[in-house]
Amino acid sequence: MTCWNFSAGPAVLPAAVLSKVQKELLSYQDSEMSVMELSHRSSLFQHIISDAEKSLRNLMGIPDNYHVLFVQGGASTQFASIPMNLLKDKKAGYVISGSWGKKAFEEADKLYPGQAIVIADSTSNKHTEIPDVIIENESEFDYIHITTNNTIEGTAYHTIPKFKNVPLVADMSSNILSADYNVSDFGLIYAGAQKNIGPAGLTIVIVREDLIAMNSASIPTMMDYQTHIKNQSLYNTPPTFPIYVSKLVFDWLQELGGVSKMIEINQKKANLLYQTISESHLYTSPVHPDYRSLTNIPFVTGDTDLDKKFIAEAEEAGFVNLKGHRSVGGMRASLYNAFPLEGVEALVTFMKEFEQREGLAK
Amino acid sequence: MTCWNFSAGPAVLPAAVLSKVQKELLSYQDSEMSVMELSHRSSLFQHIISDAEKSLRNLMGIPDNYHVLFVQGGASTQFASIPMNLLKDKKAGYVISGSWGKKAFEEADKLYPGQAIVIADSTSNKHTEIPDVIIENESEFDYIHITTNNTIEGTAYHTIPKFKNVPLVADMSSNILSADYNVSDFGLIYAGAQKNIGPAGLTIVIVREDLIAMNSASIPTMMDYQTHIKNQSLYNTPPTFPIYVSKLVFDWLQELGGVSKMIEINQKKANLLYQTISESHLYTSPVHPDYRSLTNIPFVTGDTDLDKKFIAEAEEAGFVNLKGHRSVGGMRASLYNAFPLEGVEALVTFMKEFEQREGLAK
Repeated sequence: MTCWNFSAGPAVLPAAVLSKVQKELLSYQDSEMSVMELSHRSSLFQHIISDAEKSLRNLMGIPDNYHVLFVQGGASTQFASIPMNLLKDKKAGYVISGSWGKKAFEEADKLYPGQAIVIADSTSNKHTEIPDVIIENESEFDYIHITTNNTIEGTAYHTIPKFKNVPLVADMSSNILSADYNVSDFGLIYAGAQKNIGPAGLTIVIVREDLIAMNSASIPTMMDYQTHIKNQSLYNTPPTFPIYVSKLVFDWLQELGGVSKMIEINQKKANLLYQTISESHLYTSPVHPDYRSLTNIPFVTGDTDLDKKFIAEAEEAGFVNLKGHRSVGGMRASLYNAFPLEGVEALVTFMKEFEQREGLAK
Repeated sequence: MTCWNFSAGPAVLPAAVLSKVQKELLSYQDSEMSVMELSHRSSLFQHIISDAEKSLRNLMGIPDNYHVLFVQGGASTQFASIPMNLLKDKKAGYVISGSWGKKAFEEADKLYPGQAIVIADSTSNKHTEIPDVIIENESEFDYIHITTNNTIEGTAYHTIPKFKNVPLVADMSSNILSADYNVSDFGLIYAGAQKNIGPAGLTIVIVREDLIAMNSASIPTMMDYQTHIKNQSLYNTPPTFPIYVSKLVFDWLQELGGVSKMIEINQKKANLLYQTISESHLYTSPVHPDYRSLTNIPFVTGDTDLDKKFIAEAEEAGFVNLKGHRSVGGMRASLYNAFPLEGVEALVTFMKEFEQREGLAK
């Protein structure tokens, strides 16, 4: 039975990439060593990490005045690293458009009480919309933090807010490489790899060079961006295998036609699911149409027992990880870059059949 | 040509483990998903991480009053986490028996100036011995930090110093699971996986439960041991693939006969190399015989040009990563658990041939 994996992360990877990984697992480039066994100081691995950076720069159009870092610890570690590195004597403004943005704010607030402030919050409408940000005095802030795509709630920024004098910091974990954002609109972008890039255990940080603190004496060495900049992400042993797989994913995406082509395909995938929801009498989307994510699509039947039945029957039929996050309930289909159109076609067929069986009988 | 990989880390992995990884790479337990694609909240992955913990507890005889954590960031991140979590209002005593112990001290000193002090230091004899520790007043310390095996210098503790009233913290990165230490002699043990356990990107922390700070309000959440204890290492997405491979390595070691059997094999491997060095007129070990490591064995010819020639010819013959760390020079053979006896036999044959070709002509 074909398995369609809708996991929100770690998530499906391109089949071609996994085949390549499998093929060269025991001997990378005829070295008789697995990639996992390569010294991170070896020229074989140095090529992997520098090629990974080159491909990512190419795919995202990252300008030369931005550093690209491959680090560990996930977005949750960045929630602390960001204020440690970027917060000086002003404020950090946080937009809370979902659960992860809230966590980012809470960490900054924990470490720098009083300096982190909420500048927009969609909690009152259950994060079904992206809240507007209006800043009266930009010079009060060292940075503004947003979450470009809200994995749990299924909302996304389709237009990035622009500020003149304050850098924008973005958690892009769940839509990096699948949105047509300009890197130069951001001061810092970060993303856990395990959704749209590669295996868990790798975090990407893209940071504009002028934002890096010169005095970082009190920052733990591993959380100090300067450490990783100075050492090209090789200060200590990096997560070599996740970097290798991510490099293959970048190559795959490049070959496919890059981010713009990917967005085209993602739009097709998302539109098919949103259209099915909108034409249905059973399913609804909790998200305001203006803010719907292309990568994480929640939907509900409005009846929690029926949701459970849907999830159970879907799993039986090979559609796994469709259960929505407990804070939202219902179902959620994560359609990251590597998720194939065929899987969405199969899902909407199943949804229609389920609706016919159950929905009409309601 | 057979390749013998003497890398100090990331290092060689058991061939049987790599074959298993390759075999089930596209479909873990007939799930039609790669391990890399499994949600960390799925029952398939929950079994992997809990089995990994069980096996490690079994292999090391970890008592119930110790927590086992699977985290990210390497030993270098622990250099900060340890004082953050364990340093209260007393001092932290550091034994500097090599480069990594020095880095551990420097990080604690950076973050808590004046509280971290050096209590023993073998810098003056180039770390060719493990320095003795004599503590007059244990009650002055919150913990004592040692490095059980010095990867770069090739020394190891064969007897762990015992203290009555101060917990011992040990960086065991390069000889975890290959020394007959008692976990109960330590307050905290930590190790990067990439030497003796599995792929890079995973760090193991074993900590006695009474040492965990109750008030951790100022610690970054991801560096706070309580975070990972409360969430069974699943606070955020863990490095799922490295955990999976490490679990397979634990199973492999278990099947082989456990740590005591492993030590037997490692002694055979190390003895063969040390004996070859001692019987040779060309090679010498810089390390005092009482403190020689079983896992990292440096040796030199005494002539840097000849060392270079040895390394180049060895590489030609399939012996890779034999170059010593730049701070020590010469050669270094890392013989971690997964490194087979046959590789040492092949190396000593090569060494003898090289000596005959070059050494006698000196």
